[in-house]
Amino acid sequence: MRVVDLIRRKRDAGELTPEEIKFLIEGYTHNTIPDYQMAAWLMAAWIRGLSPAELAALTDAMLHSGKVLDWSDLPGRKVDKHSTGGVGDKTSLVIAPIVAVGGLRVPMISGRGLGHTGGTLDKLESIAGFNVNLSLAEFRRVLAKCGCALIGQTQEIAPADKKIYALRDVTATVDNPFLICASIMSKKLAEGIDALVLDVKTGSGAFMKKIQDAEYLAGLMVETGKRMGKKMVALITDMDQPLGRTAGNAMEIGECIEVLGGAGPADLRALSIELSGWMFFLGDRTKDVAEGRKLAEEMIASGRARDKFREIIHEQGGDARVVDEPQRLPKARVKLDVTSAAAGFVAEIDCERLGIACGVLGGGREKKEDAIDPAVGLEFHRRLGDRVERGAPLATLHYNSDARLAEARQLVESSYRIAPAPPAPRPLVHKVIGI
Amino acid sequence: MRVVDLIRRKRDAGELTPEEIKFLIEGYTHNTIPDYQMAAWLMAAWIRGLSPAELAALTDAMLHSGKVLDWSDLPGRKVDKHSTGGVGDKTSLVIAPIVAVGGLRVPMISGRGLGHTGGTLDKLESIAGFNVNLSLAEFRRVLAKCGCALIGQTQEIAPADKKIYALRDVTATVDNPFLICASIMSKKLAEGIDALVLDVKTGSGAFMKKIQDAEYLAGLMVETGKRMGKKMVALITDMDQPLGRTAGNAMEIGECIEVLGGAGPADLRALSIELSGWMFFLGDRTKDVAEGRKLAEEMIASGRARDKFREIIHEQGGDARVVDEPQRLPKARVKLDVTSAAAGFVAEIDCERLGIACGVLGGGREKKEDAIDPAVGLEFHRRLGDRVERGAPLATLHYNSDARLAEARQLVESSYRIAPAPPAPRPLVHKVIGI
Repeated sequence: MRVVDLIRRKRDAGELTPEEIKFLIEGYTHNTIPDYQMAAWLMAAWIRGLSPAELAALTDAMLHSGKVLDWSDLPGRKVDKHSTGGVGDKTSLVIAPIVAVGGLRVPMISGRGLGHTGGTLDKLESIAGFNVNLSLAEFRRVLAKCGCALIGQTQEIAPADKKIYALRDVTATVDNPFLICASIMSKKLAEGIDALVLDVKTGSGAFMKKIQDAEYLAGLMVETGKRMGKKMVALITDMDQPLGRTAGNAMEIGECIEVLGGAGPADLRALSIELSGWMFFLGDRTKDVAEGRKLAEEMIASGRARDKFREIIHEQGGDARVVDEPQRLPKARVKLDVTSAAAGFVAEIDCERLGIACGVLGGGREKKEDAIDPAVGLEFHRRLGDRVERGAPLATLHYNSDARLAEARQLVESSYRIAPAPPAPRPLVHKVIGI
Repeated sequence: MRVVDLIRRKRDAGELTPEEIKFLIEGYTHNTIPDYQMAAWLMAAWIRGLSPAELAALTDAMLHSGKVLDWSDLPGRKVDKHSTGGVGDKTSLVIAPIVAVGGLRVPMISGRGLGHTGGTLDKLESIAGFNVNLSLAEFRRVLAKCGCALIGQTQEIAPADKKIYALRDVTATVDNPFLICASIMSKKLAEGIDALVLDVKTGSGAFMKKIQDAEYLAGLMVETGKRMGKKMVALITDMDQPLGRTAGNAMEIGECIEVLGGAGPADLRALSIELSGWMFFLGDRTKDVAEGRKLAEEMIASGRARDKFREIIHEQGGDARVVDEPQRLPKARVKLDVTSAAAGFVAEIDCERLGIACGVLGGGREKKEDAIDPAVGLEFHRRLGDRVERGAPLATLHYNSDARLAEARQLVESSYRIAPAPPAPRPLVHKVIGI
């Protein structure tokens, strides 16, 4: 088998066999196939696409490039949720304790902020002491004890994805549904789960701005997971504005604690319950989604989910007192309101721009090596369709350094469009795919 | 300027500015842009194509990655001919002395055999002592003295092409008209010529099997050369069967000497005169092509072209006695006839397969490092449309080792299709492009 022939075939829109794809991925992971050949193949795949069989083979080869976790000795179904990323998207931190305390196991391997989007790991690290870099043995211990554990991708999990992602990042081959699907699914399936609920975001703050693109990616992921024997569902959910009232790592932890305490922003609460409901259903914990939602609500109302969150933080080395004393979370020193230049209704929000503004304040990274300031971020006072007076605050910047303040402020100001009439309302969940 | 943005633009079928293309080529040549980014860009360019402006900019950037030779102090127009490659294609060795002695200068930088095709440098090296690796100073000396010199690509000439070609070779991005055009034209224009005659081959022994593909490539090259102020013409010529009666380095030198002596195969003679005629015309030596052809014929008839060939060989360190005593050329020890299994007419020849057979005998390379046996090759006894009896020889294998004889024999046998009726005749020159 010659790599150049496999590149040529994909270049000419032909199909590779599963063996050929395995050869390619194994060779690249073990450094017998050089970056430049993989880069050429990735570009050909980006442009020509992959067949369902190729996509399954690619996912499978990437999945098996490392360890596939096995929790068969631990009782209970293992389920997870994955979001394609957005601004203020913090549902994982609400869902994990709800679903764990509701009787399923959640071995959650998450990521860091990417571009304009936040990352679960970065949020967790705003809790003093919280360790997301558990060994697999520690991961198992916490999962066995709490029913849930939250870590980052290790060297052992899908190393092919790690290597390929780094290459895609510098060769303009990131934003492709086939390659995104293989990347996400290889990591998620390596978690050793029985079922997966996908939260595929669409709108101005999502990677897939158009709902059709989100649906297409969702379809690929559901199909790929099902081919591999997993229970799958994908919810296409709205990211045309931030989820909840804040974007910024510590502030978002605060919001999650509110929701677990029975309060918090309505949209964050609703989406967390919706996704938890689907997890309970796919994990055979409830006979349908409605019952799953009810169970999730009970776990909040009883305070048990909040207790579980406290327990997880403690087991992963974090200061669990933040759950009862959120003032212990890092706080920015200075605030600045961005006000509306006109009276009217919030007609449009450039949500990606808000995410970038959060990064500019120090809440995100531009390069992998950049440090994050957990305290900074944005607080949102108006949602789409809200009435606003001239001079009333749209958002508040929380910051520690004014080095790039003007830039962040300008980004936030230009993110809102005020119009004489409110826009048509958008649902929180646009569509459910895979059932 | 970020490379990843330039890759993305080409991926999305957009256009790069000349500055952007220059940045890409300079960066790659100076190792500030890595192989994997160039590979991704090349694949995107392969699939999406280049605009005329992009192609001109690419050619220009590659051309200026090294020295552009300048012969303005030497009197006379400088012209060259370039062939896209075929089997038995040895016209350069006939043309160079004809055109030089006819009053123009021919600073010819040639290549080695590639795949199933032969190379001018390999052929010249079958003459004992002939040095194709002249320094640029020596190149100038021979060109000044003889009106012509024949060398290989040096490190100074279009180094970007050398580096990019090596990458294309292993990333399945060789066979693309835009990239081929930039590669050929950057090297040829670095020769410091005023005019260029292109011999674009089409048929079973050419890289462009279909005449439309050959015409497309010819059009690109003519257009690119003209944009750069060169006089250009492209002849689409037939490569549906070998040119002349032999393929094999030393044997082909023998044929060239025959043609320079006024004899030799009719097709080789006709094409050499045709191409020389165009060179004389484009180099303003004659008022039209017909007069150019006549001048070429005179140079042969008078023996002056043959004298010039002797002189060139001598000046480049070779044993010039071969011109008068061709038996001095290396000769294979053993011969084997391949005979016709049926009576009829030669209806089809898989000319590429014959080229591969020549390589299998040791006359070509599979890897760059492979040594060539100058003595071996094929002798052809029947041309397309020729009548053949059952058992009559179609071709003779000349070889020194029978290690892969069976393979070569099988290749040659299977290259000929014998039918009850002759095929429609094909012209030697299908079309002239650019005038």
